[in-house]
Amino acid sequence: MKNRVITISCEFGSGGRTIGKKVAEKLGIPCYDNELLQKIAAESGFSENYIKDAGEYAPGGFLVSAFSHASRSGNPNNADYLWKIQYNIITELAEKGPCVIVGRCADYILRDKADCLRVFIHADMQFRAERIVKEYGEREQSPEQRLRDKDKRRAAYHRFYTDMKWGRAQNYDLTLNSGTIGIDRCADIICGLYE
Amino acid sequence: MKNRVITISCEFGSGGRTIGKKVAEKLGIPCYDNELLQKIAAESGFSENYIKDAGEYAPGGFLVSAFSHASRSGNPNNADYLWKIQYNIITELAEKGPCVIVGRCADYILRDKADCLRVFIHADMQFRAERIVKEYGEREQSPEQRLRDKDKRRAAYHRFYTDMKWGRAQNYDLTLNSGTIGIDRCADIICGLYE
Repeated sequence: MKNRVITISCEFGSGGRTIGKKVAEKLGIPCYDNELLQKIAAESGFSENYIKDAGEYAPGGFLVSAFSHASRSGNPNNADYLWKIQYNIITELAEKGPCVIVGRCADYILRDKADCLRVFIHADMQFRAERIVKEYGEREQSPEQRLRDKDKRRAAYHRFYTDMKWGRAQNYDLTLNSGTIGIDRCADIICGLYE
Repeated sequence: MKNRVITISCEFGSGGRTIGKKVAEKLGIPCYDNELLQKIAAESGFSENYIKDAGEYAPGGFLVSAFSHASRSGNPNNADYLWKIQYNIITELAEKGPCVIVGRCADYILRDKADCLRVFIHADMQFRAERIVKEYGEREQSPEQRLRDKDKRRAAYHRFYTDMKWGRAQNYDLTLNSGTIGIDRCADIICGLYE
């Protein structure tokens, strides 16, 4: 029997991870976010930071140059190796029981394997810029530049492995603007749709 | 003072119009869909069918050839003339009071004028194909072909006048898959977000 799984894709700074945690807490099911990273790290032998970074670079460098890609996230073989581990871990988690999975193309990986509620969370630049400064502190780059950078990378990574457009409404059951709707309310709507 | 307006964009056959009507009924506010068409017809002197058709062709013909465009929906001057009338009517309706407006780029037209809840409704091909045959009957073209055709036209029309990508999650507060969520539940979620 197929478990009911909630997958949450999100723009950086939109509060998708926070929403995932809130939803899981309310529903009394596990939320895999950092735990997922830890599992991939344990299985692959790479550090969590390396995996985090690799998850936002498309191998082959159609977004960034091959050189800058190689210097940041290793060669494509590493990326493909990580993808396989990620693929297996996400599949196993979904088989284990109902859960919330944040990011890492879980919606695509589970498309034929689990009964998924596929959610995408986004918000406008200003909302996200304020949020990332509050959550992660100031950096040399402006928050807007960091967001544009991350958005591009996530979209490219998603596109590379799934051949689907990240943020295209038709790829999800539900997309929510956390900036206008509010984080708690987003969590409530998702919980309401979970049976 | 700005009125609260719900704008609903939708894929053909996804039930967006039905959802709009249900929402309006529940909230006790008017829903402008066919009424909008009638108003534009009355003001412009064109028939409702002509306007319906023109609302799904991008002038200039970057989707269809200039020739086939001209033969179907008149010259670009007509399209621009209709756009201006549509623009004014939608603006006036939003100034008059809270309401639901289905289609016709109302989300874009009202972007700086009203406090909008911007919704996009979509569903997969099979759900929509069954629905259009049930609602509008069989045609010479297969339902799938009719859907693909309409989708392309709506996206092109939207793109032409708004320079925004139709169906891109980030352009809306909320997008819903009526096929997986159900039409009544979509209406409930929208009502729940309207204050």
